[in-house]
Amino acid sequence: MEHDAEINQRARLRPITEIADALGLGADDIEPYGRYMAKVSMSAVRRAAAGRRGRLLYTTAITATPAGEGKTTVAIGLTQALGRMGLKAAVCLREPSLGPTFGVKGGATGGGLSQIAPMVDINLHFTGDLHAVASAHNLLAAAVDNHIHQGNELGIDPKRVLWRRVMDINDRQLRHIVVGLGAPGDGVVRETGFDITAASEVMAILCLSHDMDDLKARLGRILVGEGRPGTGRKAPWIFAHQIGVIGAMAVLLRDAIKPNLVQTLEGQPAFVHGGPFANIAHGNNSILATQTALGLADFVVTEGGFAADLGAEKFLDIVVPQTGLVPDVVVLVATVRALHYHGGASRSTLHAYDPEALRRGFANLDHHIRTLQRFGLPVVVAVNRFDSDDPRELEAVVAHCQEMGVRAAVADVVARGGEGGVELAETVLATLERERPSFRPAYEWEMPLTEKLERLATQVYGADGVDLSSRARAELEALEERGFGGLPLCVAKTQFSISDDASRRGAPTGWRLQVREVRPSLGAGFVVALTGDVMTMPGLPKEPAALRIDVDQEGFVTGLS
Amino acid sequence: MEHDAEINQRARLRPITEIADALGLGADDIEPYGRYMAKVSMSAVRRAAAGRRGRLLYTTAITATPAGEGKTTVAIGLTQALGRMGLKAAVCLREPSLGPTFGVKGGATGGGLSQIAPMVDINLHFTGDLHAVASAHNLLAAAVDNHIHQGNELGIDPKRVLWRRVMDINDRQLRHIVVGLGAPGDGVVRETGFDITAASEVMAILCLSHDMDDLKARLGRILVGEGRPGTGRKAPWIFAHQIGVIGAMAVLLRDAIKPNLVQTLEGQPAFVHGGPFANIAHGNNSILATQTALGLADFVVTEGGFAADLGAEKFLDIVVPQTGLVPDVVVLVATVRALHYHGGASRSTLHAYDPEALRRGFANLDHHIRTLQRFGLPVVVAVNRFDSDDPRELEAVVAHCQEMGVRAAVADVVARGGEGGVELAETVLATLERERPSFRPAYEWEMPLTEKLERLATQVYGADGVDLSSRARAELEALEERGFGGLPLCVAKTQFSISDDASRRGAPTGWRLQVREVRPSLGAGFVVALTGDVMTMPGLPKEPAALRIDVDQEGFVTGLS
Repeated sequence: MEHDAEINQRARLRPITEIADALGLGADDIEPYGRYMAKVSMSAVRRAAAGRRGRLLYTTAITATPAGEGKTTVAIGLTQALGRMGLKAAVCLREPSLGPTFGVKGGATGGGLSQIAPMVDINLHFTGDLHAVASAHNLLAAAVDNHIHQGNELGIDPKRVLWRRVMDINDRQLRHIVVGLGAPGDGVVRETGFDITAASEVMAILCLSHDMDDLKARLGRILVGEGRPGTGRKAPWIFAHQIGVIGAMAVLLRDAIKPNLVQTLEGQPAFVHGGPFANIAHGNNSILATQTALGLADFVVTEGGFAADLGAEKFLDIVVPQTGLVPDVVVLVATVRALHYHGGASRSTLHAYDPEALRRGFANLDHHIRTLQRFGLPVVVAVNRFDSDDPRELEAVVAHCQEMGVRAAVADVVARGGEGGVELAETVLATLERERPSFRPAYEWEMPLTEKLERLATQVYGADGVDLSSRARAELEALEERGFGGLPLCVAKTQFSISDDASRRGAPTGWRLQVREVRPSLGAGFVVALTGDVMTMPGLPKEPAALRIDVDQEGFVTGLS
Repeated sequence: MEHDAEINQRARLRPITEIADALGLGADDIEPYGRYMAKVSMSAVRRAAAGRRGRLLYTTAITATPAGEGKTTVAIGLTQALGRMGLKAAVCLREPSLGPTFGVKGGATGGGLSQIAPMVDINLHFTGDLHAVASAHNLLAAAVDNHIHQGNELGIDPKRVLWRRVMDINDRQLRHIVVGLGAPGDGVVRETGFDITAASEVMAILCLSHDMDDLKARLGRILVGEGRPGTGRKAPWIFAHQIGVIGAMAVLLRDAIKPNLVQTLEGQPAFVHGGPFANIAHGNNSILATQTALGLADFVVTEGGFAADLGAEKFLDIVVPQTGLVPDVVVLVATVRALHYHGGASRSTLHAYDPEALRRGFANLDHHIRTLQRFGLPVVVAVNRFDSDDPRELEAVVAHCQEMGVRAAVADVVARGGEGGVELAETVLATLERERPSFRPAYEWEMPLTEKLERLATQVYGADGVDLSSRARAELEALEERGFGGLPLCVAKTQFSISDDASRRGAPTGWRLQVREVRPSLGAGFVVALTGDVMTMPGLPKEPAALRIDVDQEGFVTGLS
């Protein structure tokens, strides 16, 4: 089989105006970026988002192996299958980050015959949204330091500046830095660092904003630092609106707020918009994209980052309560390979026939199914087929799900595109016909923060409880005292285990969630609880993907995956 | 009069496809970015750049006051005037940098009725070229540090890494930093810093490359650092091609290499492409844009950064020898205000009638006229009219030029657009009819580096000679020894004086050029000689422009200038 990049670049795409037209969007409703990409104008977004006609199919996954198990690919393949069946379907995805594209993971545009296109552009600069987020983020950082340098009227303590800088490159060298060295005119010496752009609170804000005014209000609520505490007084908090560059940040995000429209290899519309991390942020594409798609299509497939305990949980506890975007069905992606892994198989033999490991691995699948059922949502399991899979094991997964009373189907979308997703699509449609969501979040926002944490730990992660570090306890108390106890939680946790320990496979029991630090994301509107070490700036591996990537005189790109 | 941003956003623009069509570019020759911006495809660039049909009108200026004197505006107004006269004219400009847009200077899209549009987009992310340059630059930086971190096979000395990082924000805090702090997995501790993106060597390379292969070859020649010198041996130089991410950098620049097409407020085509600094880089738009325009239009107006001793000199000594792009005429922009300044008037009274200061200020104008004549080029002086100008002084400037045997005209293009530039256009056309360039560069590339410096200092800047610091002398010798003595020079010098001392107005005499440091830009293909302090990362002022900028729900932007 050809490499993804070759398949993608040789595909015959439809002009983006045709894709838009099929959705009822006219020439004035879109702003083209090249021939195959466009942004949807804010007036069209407002019109489309005003009424929901579509059913929302939310794609998530079991706990993945380090390579990823094809959740995006299944979401695209399912959309293509629905399209083949004559249904009006669209897919909503997060947009890729340059860092992973040149690092280990590669791009994020699906694989094989289930891809979105044009993948080279989408994986590189796309329509510039990530660059816009980084510019807005870093303008605020420069303005905060400039405020201190120019007299510091607000009395910001240079040792308590919370706002770091961002860059969309995997660059470990920038994790911990000292800035402001040099001459007196070169700023204030202090410690800080860079995160990757996807980890910027501005990205989370972009994905949660309803319109430009909401975006500005949220940007203004960003906590950038603290002043020095007086005797017996709390340190005053300094917010972005006090710095005064909110308008300029919003100008930089003027186009980024508009959803991007591209297409699948089979010509279904794909809204690819926003890409927040699924650990320190909520890991789902923009609400404007999903709302727009739901106003224009009958079936909207979307997906969240990492497994059901991360991206899906955050969608259900952070996004749904403020938007009402309750999924009609959840598609839970599993692979034989990942089930082997969770059943204890060694990394080098994941592709080999091993029914015993598979059976033991069901513990992870079952845990995620129960979690989603506890949210009151209909579940369909999609077994994403790999070439090396033994048919007996694929059947065993489907049979196991049926024993649990859950519909399941094998998806062969990498090799066969939409055609290979028809069985899954039919299973989803059958579920939509017979089941209705009866949504219950994991917690109510008005509960105290510690109680919300306890709920998540015990009901979603299967922990026995929560252990707070003394720092985390003090930070949670401070948030309650300052009136932010009613915000939802965003737990930053490893994606390689349901627990907070990346080495524990399956469905770990007999453990307690260790919360070491709490960070308010007041602009995004959630409280981040950090468990273990969370990487907000990845590094490059010894042989980064960047070494294999090239482009010829005609602009044809090789080595991108 | 309305503010520039309001005039620009309310203007009725023609679809970019129409602008392209008038140049003979079909729908397949351009890639639209929204309705009013496009990139020209590489195949169309190759076709157009193959044959030159147009005359090249190069715009430069006398030494400016800190506010700038409207060179870009005159270039746009002249193009609009030629268009009004029924001639097929296009303008080529550098693209703006975000840093100054939010800092002191504001954007770079002209003013009043002589602007290019859509100015908000052009001044913000435009088609993403600066972001692409920054990404490519910073990917190389991350790869260099990753190489050291992962075992350092090339033996790069962490104390001799020359490749810094870039950001398109005015952020003094990042000028001098220490990176790689933290745990062992967080990289290698060393000193470095950030420059503004326009100062990146990648930007200079983009502007000087003939095609993708040339771009890759130049990227590969970037000097990223040195190894440790052995006993009695020179430190080995480490080049970017040894790091191995040239293909990935080129992929990031795949679209950035294509010229951008927009329009003037009066509908003439404007190629806005590349924005290298005019101090540590060569300060002119891309050669691909100029060559494309010259293949499609009969009159191509372009401009270089700062005054004739900087942008124009670099165009003539760096760009022309490798492209043959000899200007047919040079338009030298002067203002009454700047002449007052050079005649000794205080900054607060530059707008007041002061014929004595004006007369004294002619020294600066005359110096630049003689410099350009020494290059063998026909010169026309354009007196850019400001509202506060006294008509007697405008006339005095024109009369003075005529006494020197140089044609001159008042340009009233801010207030009246192309109509206000017709007199200037007629003067230019008359000059084209009567004079032919007989081009002589300031030096031949094969001269030794010190001799080339001497030539520039005495013949272009009016110095008595050159004083080299011991460091600069050693660096020049090392370059000659390593075989790079045949490269042209790029002198980084203050833009506020013809001398190397920003406080010296007029045409200073009796001084020697102080060269303190020499840096090879081997990818760009020139040797940078630094005189005095050259700022490669600006800071924000106490009241940055960012504080005044805002955007409303409909996306209408205010406060941008």
